[in-house]
Amino acid sequence: MYLGSWLSRLSRGLSRPIGKTMRPIWASLSRNLALSSQRIPEFSSFVSRTNTCGELRSSHLGQEVTLCGWIQYRRQNTFLVLRDCHGLVQILIPQDESAASVRRILCEAPVESVVRVSGTVISRPPGQENPKMPTGEIEIKVKTAELLNACKKLPFEIKDFVKKTEALRLQYRYLDLRSFQMQYNLRLRSKMVMKMREYLCNLHGFVDIETPTLFKRTPGGAKEFLVPSREPGKFYSLPQSPQQFKQLLMVGGLDRYFQVARCYRDEGSRPDRQPEFTQIDIEMSFVDQTGIQRLVEGLLQYSWPDDKDPLLIPFPSMTFAEALATYGTDKPDTRFGMKIVDTSDVFRNTEMRFLRDALAKPQGTVKAMCVPQGAEVLPIFLNAKKNWSSPFAKFIMEEERLELTRLMEIQEEDMVLLTAGDHEKACSLLGKLRLECADLLELRGVVLRDPAVFSFLWVVDFPLFLAKEERPTELESAHHPFTAPHSSDMHLLYTEPEKVRGQHYDLVLNGNEIGGGSVRIHDAQLQRYILETLLKEDVKLLSHLLQALDHGAPPHGGIALGLDRLVCLVTGAPSIRDVIAFPKSYRGHDLMSNAPDSVSAEELKPYHIHVLWPTDSEEESVSATPSKHLSS
Amino acid sequence: MYLGSWLSRLSRGLSRPIGKTMRPIWASLSRNLALSSQRIPEFSSFVSRTNTCGELRSSHLGQEVTLCGWIQYRRQNTFLVLRDCHGLVQILIPQDESAASVRRILCEAPVESVVRVSGTVISRPPGQENPKMPTGEIEIKVKTAELLNACKKLPFEIKDFVKKTEALRLQYRYLDLRSFQMQYNLRLRSKMVMKMREYLCNLHGFVDIETPTLFKRTPGGAKEFLVPSREPGKFYSLPQSPQQFKQLLMVGGLDRYFQVARCYRDEGSRPDRQPEFTQIDIEMSFVDQTGIQRLVEGLLQYSWPDDKDPLLIPFPSMTFAEALATYGTDKPDTRFGMKIVDTSDVFRNTEMRFLRDALAKPQGTVKAMCVPQGAEVLPIFLNAKKNWSSPFAKFIMEEERLELTRLMEIQEEDMVLLTAGDHEKACSLLGKLRLECADLLELRGVVLRDPAVFSFLWVVDFPLFLAKEERPTELESAHHPFTAPHSSDMHLLYTEPEKVRGQHYDLVLNGNEIGGGSVRIHDAQLQRYILETLLKEDVKLLSHLLQALDHGAPPHGGIALGLDRLVCLVTGAPSIRDVIAFPKSYRGHDLMSNAPDSVSAEELKPYHIHVLWPTDSEEESVSATPSKHLSS
Repeated sequence: MYLGSWLSRLSRGLSRPIGKTMRPIWASLSRNLALSSQRIPEFSSFVSRTNTCGELRSSHLGQEVTLCGWIQYRRQNTFLVLRDCHGLVQILIPQDESAASVRRILCEAPVESVVRVSGTVISRPPGQENPKMPTGEIEIKVKTAELLNACKKLPFEIKDFVKKTEALRLQYRYLDLRSFQMQYNLRLRSKMVMKMREYLCNLHGFVDIETPTLFKRTPGGAKEFLVPSREPGKFYSLPQSPQQFKQLLMVGGLDRYFQVARCYRDEGSRPDRQPEFTQIDIEMSFVDQTGIQRLVEGLLQYSWPDDKDPLLIPFPSMTFAEALATYGTDKPDTRFGMKIVDTSDVFRNTEMRFLRDALAKPQGTVKAMCVPQGAEVLPIFLNAKKNWSSPFAKFIMEEERLELTRLMEIQEEDMVLLTAGDHEKACSLLGKLRLECADLLELRGVVLRDPAVFSFLWVVDFPLFLAKEERPTELESAHHPFTAPHSSDMHLLYTEPEKVRGQHYDLVLNGNEIGGGSVRIHDAQLQRYILETLLKEDVKLLSHLLQALDHGAPPHGGIALGLDRLVCLVTGAPSIRDVIAFPKSYRGHDLMSNAPDSVSAEELKPYHIHVLWPTDSEEESVSATPSKHLSS
Repeated sequence: MYLGSWLSRLSRGLSRPIGKTMRPIWASLSRNLALSSQRIPEFSSFVSRTNTCGELRSSHLGQEVTLCGWIQYRRQNTFLVLRDCHGLVQILIPQDESAASVRRILCEAPVESVVRVSGTVISRPPGQENPKMPTGEIEIKVKTAELLNACKKLPFEIKDFVKKTEALRLQYRYLDLRSFQMQYNLRLRSKMVMKMREYLCNLHGFVDIETPTLFKRTPGGAKEFLVPSREPGKFYSLPQSPQQFKQLLMVGGLDRYFQVARCYRDEGSRPDRQPEFTQIDIEMSFVDQTGIQRLVEGLLQYSWPDDKDPLLIPFPSMTFAEALATYGTDKPDTRFGMKIVDTSDVFRNTEMRFLRDALAKPQGTVKAMCVPQGAEVLPIFLNAKKNWSSPFAKFIMEEERLELTRLMEIQEEDMVLLTAGDHEKACSLLGKLRLECADLLELRGVVLRDPAVFSFLWVVDFPLFLAKEERPTELESAHHPFTAPHSSDMHLLYTEPEKVRGQHYDLVLNGNEIGGGSVRIHDAQLQRYILETLLKEDVKLLSHLLQALDHGAPPHGGIALGLDRLVCLVTGAPSIRDVIAFPKSYRGHDLMSNAPDSVSAEELKPYHIHVLWPTDSEEESVSATPSKHLSS
C-alpha cells in the first residue's frame, strides 16, 4: 500500500489501506497514536505553521491558520488538497482577479511541491462535505500562498510507483516514506518504544545504558562484521548482541539495565533479515525466570497500541518438548489447532510396511495431523469423506480406521496427514505441513489466523546443549554458553549433559520467535566447566567475564526482544523492511545510496588491509600472509 | 572518587564524594533521580527482595524485609553493612547459638560477596544512630541469610584501587561501576535522556527513528571506520552522524525526527575522544534558526537534573565575530570576564617597534586582556602594581598608559597581556592565554568558574566557508556542505563566497561546544552549485540527496547535541570516560576485553581482505592491487 494507490485513494477523499488489518484513516494518525499519552503533543510548536493539515475540524471555523505541506491533488484549478504528516485538508483556490498571484502559485506548482498557505477555516458549502475525510466538513479560504520548493518531474509516473518492485521503493525511499503505511509504521514503532521506556525507566527503575558496538570477536562469532583498526592485524567486531556487557553491568551493580540496542549480524544474503537490527535488551539482578516473564508481559501490555485489543496476561507457557510434539516446532502458531497426535499405538499391528518398519526402530513413531475440512479444499491425501481415499487407504484396517477417527476426532470433509519415523523428524515434518496447509486453506477462504488476534506463548525448558550436526559426539550450546542449567538437572551436567534443560525461555507471537532470554550462570566455576570441559571453547577469549563472575557477580537473568519483528507483526507489515526507515535489500545493499561501495587503496592504507580480488589465485593469497602474523 | 576511597568513606557511615560539585549522598541516589517523574519507580518489582537497602527508614520499623546486596564492610563480626544500587544498610549479625549458620555465612563471606538476608527492621539502640547515613536510624535483625556468590580474592587490595591508574579502572570496569560516582553518572545520564525523550516525543510530537550505521563513505569522510562486506572491494562505512538520513527523513515527510544516535569517528589516538559516541540528533521541517534554538532551550530546561539550579532560558547569543574578538575563540567560557580589548588606537603613535610594525600591516591590531588581580598571583608580564613592571614598560608612553588604564579599567594588582598582529591570530592567542590564566588563578585560590554555574551560549553567524589551510585559494565548508547561507548574504555566493555567513549555530556550555546545527539547503540547484562550483566535490557520491531535494524537499533544519560531553559537564566528571559504561582508552582499546584483537586469515577470507603488515614493502602492496579495481 504505497504512494501510488494511496494517492489515488486519497483523491477520492478516503484513505483506508488494504493491509490485513484495518487502519485508522490518514488524518487521525498522529492523534490516535498520541492519545495513549496523558497529553496531546504540540505538533506545531517552534515552526511557522499554526496548525497541521489533518487536525482541522468544524471547531476551528473562522480561525486564521497557516499550513505547510505537499500538494497532494488539484481539481479543475479550484480545489487543492494539501497534505502534511497529520493528514489532508482541502484548499479553496481563490478565483478573483485580486488574488491572481496566489492563484498562479497554487495552480502552477506541480503535484508534490511544498507550499505554505495562510487563510481562514470555513465551512464547505452544504452538500459538499466529505464524511469519509476527517477534515471533510471544512476547507481553507486562502489569503496568501508561498511556493517553498517545487517538485521536479519524478523519474516515473507516480501511479506506476506502486506497481514497481520493492527495489524501486527502496531506491526512492524518501518518496516511499511519504506513504500512509510507512508513516503509520514508523510512528507506531516510535510510540511503542517510548511506552516501553516509560514502563522500564519510570515505572520499574531500569537504567538505560549504552554499550559499545566496537567490541572484540566473541568465540564462535562467525557472523560478526569486522572493523579494521589502525593497528596492523587488529580488528574490532560489531557484536550480535550486548550479551557480555549486560552481564558485566550486573556484576557492576547496575541492577536493572535496558537498552534499545543496535545489533549486527553478517549472514550474507537472507530474505527478511537485516545486517543491522534492533533489540529491546533487558537484564536484571536477583531475578528468576518467572520474574523476567512477568516483567516482559507487563512491558508488552503497557506498550501495546491503543488501536488493538488489550493484551491478556500472563501469556500461556509450554515446554519445548510439548511444542515439538504438538506443533512440530519450537515456535508454535497457537492461533489455530491442527495439532500433531501420536498414533503409534493405533498402528502397532499394522500391515503397512513403512509404518511397521518405522515403529520397529528405537524412537520410531507414527504421527498424524487432522486438517479440518481439508478434504474439501485440499483433496490430496487421506480423505475421510470419500471412504478414506488414498493410495494407502486399502492397507488401513477397519479397526485402525475407527481408532484413528476416535483418537483424532476426524469428521467427514477432514483430511488426515500421517507420517512415520523418528519422533523429532516426524513432528518437524508435520509442523511444516501444518503451516503449509494453513496457507492453502486460507488461500481458499478458510479463516484460520485472524489478523486481529495476537497469540503470545512462552516456550520453556529447552535442552541446554545440542549435539553438533557435523560431529554428533560433541556438544554445542542450544542458545549461548551463559545460560544457567535447570537447578533440578544440575547433577546431570556431570553424567548426561545432553539431558540437562536450560533456564532459557523464548517468547513466541503468532508462530514467530520475537524474544529469547535466560537466567545466566553467575558461578565462575560452573561457567568454566561448561565452556572448557563440555563445549571445548577457548576460555582465554572470555577470561574477563570469568574473572568478573569471581568478583561478586549477583544472580541475574534477562531477555532480548526483536523490535523489528515485533513491530512488523503488530502493524501487519509484509516484511521487516516496512518498519525500518532505511532498510537494506535482502542482499545487504542500500539501494538509495549504493552502499556498500568501493574504497580506494589509499583509503585502506591506514587500516593495513588490502583487497584480495577473486581473480587472485588462492596460492598467492596464502603465501602473501605469513601464518605467524595471523595467529590470534 | 572510586571504589577504594568510597569504601573507606562509606565505612565511616558517610558518602560525600570529593568531586567539584556536591553530590547527594549514596542512599538517596535513586530516590533523588526518580523524584522528577510523577511516580517513584518500583525498584523491587519482579525480584526476590522486598526492599532496597538504601530505602529503609524509621517508617519501616517492624517490617519483615528481604534484601539482596554486596557485603560492604564488617565490624567485629557484629555488624555488617550491606550495599545495593540504592545505598547501604546496617545488618545486625545474630550472636545466639541457634543462629550459628546465619552467623557463619555472614562472618565468613569475603567483602564484596553477594548475599540475601531476611529479617526485621528495628531501631538502632539509643546513641548508636548515624545521622550521616540515610538509613542510620535503623538496622536489620537477621533471621535467615544465604550466600549467593562468594567474592574471590581481588587481584589487588581494594584500597589500592583508587590509587591505581585509570587503566586499572578500565581493566576491572565491573568493579569500578560499583562506585558511587559511576552509578550516579550512569543513572543521571539515563534519567536526562528519558526526560529529553518525554519532551520531544510526548510534548512536541517528535518521532524517534533509527537510521542505519552501515552506510557508504561520505565525501571527505576520512574519519569514517570501514566495514568490509562479503562483496570483494566493497565496504560499508560507519558514519560520523546521521546527517544525510535526517535530511532524507524530512524529504520523506516525517516532519519532526529525533534519535539518540550512535556515531563513529576514527581519529586514531585522541585524549578525551571516543571512537563511538552518542548524539541527540534532531531535525524539523518548516523551521528556522530561532525555532531550533527555542526547542533546544526547552529541551535542556526540561531534562535538567533536579539537583541543579533550574536553567534560565532563552540562552544568550553571540556572533562568531564577537566571540572571536571578545574571547578569542568560537566557544567562549562566559562564566568569567577577562575580555579581549582592541587597543590599536591607543598605540597608533607608539614608539614600540613591534606594535608599530604590526599596526602598519593590513588587518594589523594590538589586542589586550586585563587579568584582575593577575599581578598578585601571576607576576610575569605587565604588572600594574609596581609601576608597570615589564621589560617593555619603559617604552609605553604616559599618555598610552593612561588611555589603556581608562579603556581597560585596569586596577592595581591587575595584570595586562598585550599582543600585536593580525586580528584573528592575536585574538586566538589571547583567548588561549585567557584560559591558561584562569587555570593559574584558580590553582592559586581565585574562584573564577563556579562549578555550580552552567553558562550556556549560542554562537551564530559563522562564515559558511573557510579557505583551505593547505591551498588558501580553495574553499571548504566551515561545518558541512548542507548548511544554508544567510538569506541576506545570498548575493555574495556568486561574487565573494568567503564573506557569506551560514545559518549555523553552535551551543556552548562553559567553554565547551556541546552542540551544533544549521538550517539546511533545501534547494537542489543551490546545493549543487555549492558542492560542484564552490567546493569542487564529486556530486556523484551525493546524487541521491540532490535528487531528493528536487522531489519536494521541505525547508528544514536541525541540531545535534553531544550527549557524552553534556553529561560529563553536568556531572562535573573529569573525563567523558566517566559517563560511559564501557569506554575505550585514549588509544581506542577496550582494556577489559582486549579489543581490537587479532583475527585469523581464515576469518578474513569471506571479506576478501588481507592484512598488509608494516614489514611488507610498499611496492608489494601497490603491485598486488591493480588500480582498475580500486576506482570508486
